[in-house]
Amino acid sequence: MTAIDWIFEYTKERQRLRVLHSSAHGLMGLFRRFADASQVWLILILTGLAVGTVAAGIDVTTDWLGDLKTGYCSSGPEGGAFHLNKAFCCWGYDESSKCAGWIPWANAFGVASKGGAWIIEYIVFLIFSVFLAFSAAVLVQEYGIYAKHSGIPEIKTVLGGFVIRRFLASGMWLGKEGPLVHVACCCANLFIKLFSNINDNEARKREVLSAAAASGISVAFGSPIGGVLFCLEQISYYFPDKTMWQSFVCAMTAAVMLQALDPFRTGKLVLYEAEVSTEWTDFEIIPYAILGIIGGIYGGLFIKANMAVARWKKRSTWLPGPIVQVIAVALLTALVNFPNFYMKIQSSELVSNLFVECGKHSEDKIGLCKTGAASASTIVLLLFAAILGFLLAAITFGLQLPAGIILPSMAIGALTGRAVGIIMEIWVKNHPKFFAFGSCAPDIPCITPATYAVVGAAATLAGVTRMTVSIVVIMFELTGALTYVLPMMVAVMISKWVGDAFSRRGIYESWIHFNEYPFLDNSDAETAQIPDIPAAQVITRIEDLVVLTATGHTIASLTAILDANPHRGFPVISDPREAILLGYISRAELSYNLRSSAQPPRSLPPETEAFFTHQPMADPSATLDLRPWMDQTPITLPSRANLHLVVSYFQKLGLRYVLFADRGVLQGLLTKKDVWYVLNGADETRRTAGTSGRDGTVETGITREDGDGEAEGLLRERSGSEAMSPAHERGPML
Amino acid sequence: MTAIDWIFEYTKERQRLRVLHSSAHGLMGLFRRFADASQVWLILILTGLAVGTVAAGIDVTTDWLGDLKTGYCSSGPEGGAFHLNKAFCCWGYDESSKCAGWIPWANAFGVASKGGAWIIEYIVFLIFSVFLAFSAAVLVQEYGIYAKHSGIPEIKTVLGGFVIRRFLASGMWLGKEGPLVHVACCCANLFIKLFSNINDNEARKREVLSAAAASGISVAFGSPIGGVLFCLEQISYYFPDKTMWQSFVCAMTAAVMLQALDPFRTGKLVLYEAEVSTEWTDFEIIPYAILGIIGGIYGGLFIKANMAVARWKKRSTWLPGPIVQVIAVALLTALVNFPNFYMKIQSSELVSNLFVECGKHSEDKIGLCKTGAASASTIVLLLFAAILGFLLAAITFGLQLPAGIILPSMAIGALTGRAVGIIMEIWVKNHPKFFAFGSCAPDIPCITPATYAVVGAAATLAGVTRMTVSIVVIMFELTGALTYVLPMMVAVMISKWVGDAFSRRGIYESWIHFNEYPFLDNSDAETAQIPDIPAAQVITRIEDLVVLTATGHTIASLTAILDANPHRGFPVISDPREAILLGYISRAELSYNLRSSAQPPRSLPPETEAFFTHQPMADPSATLDLRPWMDQTPITLPSRANLHLVVSYFQKLGLRYVLFADRGVLQGLLTKKDVWYVLNGADETRRTAGTSGRDGTVETGITREDGDGEAEGLLRERSGSEAMSPAHERGPML
Repeated sequence: MTAIDWIFEYTKERQRLRVLHSSAHGLMGLFRRFADASQVWLILILTGLAVGTVAAGIDVTTDWLGDLKTGYCSSGPEGGAFHLNKAFCCWGYDESSKCAGWIPWANAFGVASKGGAWIIEYIVFLIFSVFLAFSAAVLVQEYGIYAKHSGIPEIKTVLGGFVIRRFLASGMWLGKEGPLVHVACCCANLFIKLFSNINDNEARKREVLSAAAASGISVAFGSPIGGVLFCLEQISYYFPDKTMWQSFVCAMTAAVMLQALDPFRTGKLVLYEAEVSTEWTDFEIIPYAILGIIGGIYGGLFIKANMAVARWKKRSTWLPGPIVQVIAVALLTALVNFPNFYMKIQSSELVSNLFVECGKHSEDKIGLCKTGAASASTIVLLLFAAILGFLLAAITFGLQLPAGIILPSMAIGALTGRAVGIIMEIWVKNHPKFFAFGSCAPDIPCITPATYAVVGAAATLAGVTRMTVSIVVIMFELTGALTYVLPMMVAVMISKWVGDAFSRRGIYESWIHFNEYPFLDNSDAETAQIPDIPAAQVITRIEDLVVLTATGHTIASLTAILDANPHRGFPVISDPREAILLGYISRAELSYNLRSSAQPPRSLPPETEAFFTHQPMADPSATLDLRPWMDQTPITLPSRANLHLVVSYFQKLGLRYVLFADRGVLQGLLTKKDVWYVLNGADETRRTAGTSGRDGTVETGITREDGDGEAEGLLRERSGSEAMSPAHERGPML
Repeated sequence: MTAIDWIFEYTKERQRLRVLHSSAHGLMGLFRRFADASQVWLILILTGLAVGTVAAGIDVTTDWLGDLKTGYCSSGPEGGAFHLNKAFCCWGYDESSKCAGWIPWANAFGVASKGGAWIIEYIVFLIFSVFLAFSAAVLVQEYGIYAKHSGIPEIKTVLGGFVIRRFLASGMWLGKEGPLVHVACCCANLFIKLFSNINDNEARKREVLSAAAASGISVAFGSPIGGVLFCLEQISYYFPDKTMWQSFVCAMTAAVMLQALDPFRTGKLVLYEAEVSTEWTDFEIIPYAILGIIGGIYGGLFIKANMAVARWKKRSTWLPGPIVQVIAVALLTALVNFPNFYMKIQSSELVSNLFVECGKHSEDKIGLCKTGAASASTIVLLLFAAILGFLLAAITFGLQLPAGIILPSMAIGALTGRAVGIIMEIWVKNHPKFFAFGSCAPDIPCITPATYAVVGAAATLAGVTRMTVSIVVIMFELTGALTYVLPMMVAVMISKWVGDAFSRRGIYESWIHFNEYPFLDNSDAETAQIPDIPAAQVITRIEDLVVLTATGHTIASLTAILDANPHRGFPVISDPREAILLGYISRAELSYNLRSSAQPPRSLPPETEAFFTHQPMADPSATLDLRPWMDQTPITLPSRANLHLVVSYFQKLGLRYVLFADRGVLQGLLTKKDVWYVLNGADETRRTAGTSGRDGTVETGITREDGDGEAEGLLRERSGSEAMSPAHERGPML
């Protein structure tokens, strides 16, 4: 896990552009500049097209596999076709009439009795659920070792400027939300490789990946604007205006592609159309606000429960491997779900049913519109399903079978919301004279429970993810319920407040924290955690650094230093006594120059003198002047600078390291990773142990060698973890 | 015009919070911390409520004044009422039947002939238009001298961290978009004054103002999410997560308030409901893309025309005062508009009519739905109105009568779009066999011209403002046309690309540039303009600075320096020969300490020695140690650092000044304003003149005094302009 230096990458890009602009003139130059500028757009549009296609494929496959749990298609409208899902198999049939081509499994096995059919269906449901989960888990194990969880915490970390190696190796995903973001990033990564200009620049690569992530959300929910905002609010770390515009283009292309392929044959991008015809009345703002409170509590508890499960799994060494875990959870889920009326169907179908007003369709598919005494049982069933879903989601999210958290959260919220809606409906019907209900029109129904489902879904989503604007936009792009934007905003606002009272971290930040990904969160909550100390207390002191003196080196001695130390760069000082900071040379530049000077045309012998300072007496042809390759203006801070300032340097300027110098004298160095360890050590038990342990090592003085390169797992003492990384600048002073 | 230092302000806030947390314990402490944290929310909610109320008031007044141009209400549904607008006057009347209470002016004057009525109406229209414009201009002159233009460029500058004095003094505004943003900021500023914690912190004040700005857009268009995004994309400079969340809350409160007051009695937040029932067909993406191109061209040309008018007005010294200008333009507009069918009605009503599908209402109010040969004249009239509107808007925007640019742009785009839509409709009707039209359903109309108006409005808006995501969100919150989000996105994308080919600056940036507001734009286009030079070429050198040495001062000598130099702070160096940078002391801290030490209890005499460095031999009771009041870790850069890096320091860290030191030796200083002059000088004629002029002044050496405080207008030579500001750190070296 190494970090990138945004400033360095952008400087590189500026230099490349300057060369491009000066090298090419006239019409040819104009054309080359245009070609250069359009590369990024080409990548974005290709990514958008690919993601749209993949999403359409996933949609069709998911539908088919979901229906296959209940039966199969013996003959479609154009002859027999096992590959058709129920909707296409019964294409052209009236909703009320019986579809002859679709054979439920009970019929297929010739079981006629109602109880027998139920048992057959239950067994087939279990087998299919476990088999699908097993296949997915095996595929993930096989192809994507880094593809755990929803992918969003991982992508957030990568876009924050850290490098997780092999992370963007494609894996197989189930579910649609987080995973599709990951697929989008994989596609973009693939297309980036075609263009070396962008592939070689880590900063521009991350810009493109940010933009690509938007297309993932865009197709997952048919919500292009929501995708852009999701990126902005949740994923993107370093989001200049340009990236907003790029993610806009990418999200749009993907949405247009999905719309053109039209996998559901509805001709609409809106997935779960909330077919509501009524406006909301003023007093309803109170139940909507209550939904906000419930959503916040759900979200807060969900994060706590999910993290508790994750910690328990980490502690319990006796647990079987990930595939067995996945199968166990899948079996449990299937066992629990089948007998439960609302959970038997797929969660996306459940949500889409909950969002539909009663009486809008000829058929009430899942029995939500019962009236009278029957509606009480509906309420109980809905709430029961919500609680069950909550528990299952808390166990499932974080398994090595990645699926998004957005759809489950939405389902839980929609179930609760619909229940609250039915309660309100009954109340208004039984007490129409209650003073608050005065604004109800007399003849039409005053309460539409479907809208409560929409608002409840938004509230739960806000409680779990702690996003605000993006959720509202995703929800109304998803449902088309634009008139309900205000209730949604109220519920989301209250839910976020309530959720923040539980803990300041949303689900993605919690997972980043749990997995100890090196991500410097720039949210307000995390900033408040930074200890108010001078940087001097945490910097890696000059005594522990590998620093180069300006003179006294030969090509051979520098090569030896490079071989002995794996660090990514070395500060250069005037001499060991004074330690005036002259600059910083990266490992890449130094090793390249040492190698090339030893080769023709220069062919300097290894004993050639090499220096980093102006040597007026030196013979330019027989010595190696390394000054041009040294960064002579590295970013420095005084060692007494507050740690808050240091953190904002890393966050806002996107640096990889900062040097500390007092009155020109080098004091030490901090890398982004060091800062991350300090911040994440600050609220763990390592608060004191880590610091004193590190300070203890300083005693070994200026010749201390700590080239121990072994990894020790992620939870380790701070000085050990620094040594682990081949990228860390540290070691004996020369 | 002075700048604020975000880092300094946030440090201040952190210290305040630390004191608060340590001073109060137990339940009382919890309560005080809660009260402290809720202040900002109280301000935001109060602002939201106020803005919602103001917007409702403006809506009602505008409607009434607009209708008053054509007639008056003699008797409303509940008796005579001059104060009623046409809609309320005729409340309960069928649209087709005649409303008896509303008296057109022609009837009032007893003119019966058609020609006579036309002339009477024309004259009344002229008189009212000129009178209203005159009143508005006088009010603006009287109450808001800084309230020129739309307010958005000004707010952008203030939020960027510069201080325009007296800017947030309330003024009277006409129009709804930009002005309401300004009203929102004024309200917030008023409420901020109630809470000294926030009022005293320039950074937190700006956070709240950013959030308040969102509520302005929210109520102007009934678009709360659009408001948040507008802030994000256009207005806010320094937008941490917290501000997004705060603007969300503020925008929501304002929208709820407006909805509760319901000035239009529609019960809806959606203002110009695009009543379209059809889906779009695939081939329509081509005309939509063409609308995008047209919108981009409109936008590019509009900015050029508007700027040309502004430049011409600036050059033409013979022009009359602003009030006469406003009256002249109002008269011209009224003269041109009345005979033109589409421009006679208010632009908001025009837009709302253009967005409505034919056949949706019993009455085709402005004759858009003519068929056959008559539709050709409709097309011509629409296009003519669009061009006329374009010219009038180019003249009007930038007068000292502030009105928003969003509604006029939308009207121009909607007119053009509707014309294109009618052309498409005729084409499809006449050539139904054309290969592209194959996907049209046979019996229902394939083309809905109203949707072209919506897409055209979005495209023109994108061309003029160069925003992307916010426009799409504002447009679909405004119209409710969620199914047309993809066409809108395509048109906006193309329009932005085409517009950017004309010039990289949108209308707001163009005005900021034209007015030479000190705003460091962090957009990509502006960053590309930064010259690739070391900072050393532009810094104010140490020879031109007022710097303090660490020793050798008395209270009297320091007071004399303060009196002689108006600078906001002074770098402190070890001694004149070495010039090792020790720190930076702000004027406020220095003068406060000098004053307080001369008063009891210390009562030090003026000849007391004062120093900034450790003096082991000094008697602490008889000397003044200023070290605790000096910033001992000011932010420094090497003088060879690239100007790009310096600019990103100012932009991303929000600094007010940067010191330059090489190996600890102070080289010079740059303030944010200096950087702004360098950047904005770079693409003017001052490119060379400014720099050499400034370098020339260096020759006068270290005792040069330049306390010339006179202002010379905004366009002036760089060294002169620096001297103008009382806030600039410069003068003889001590």
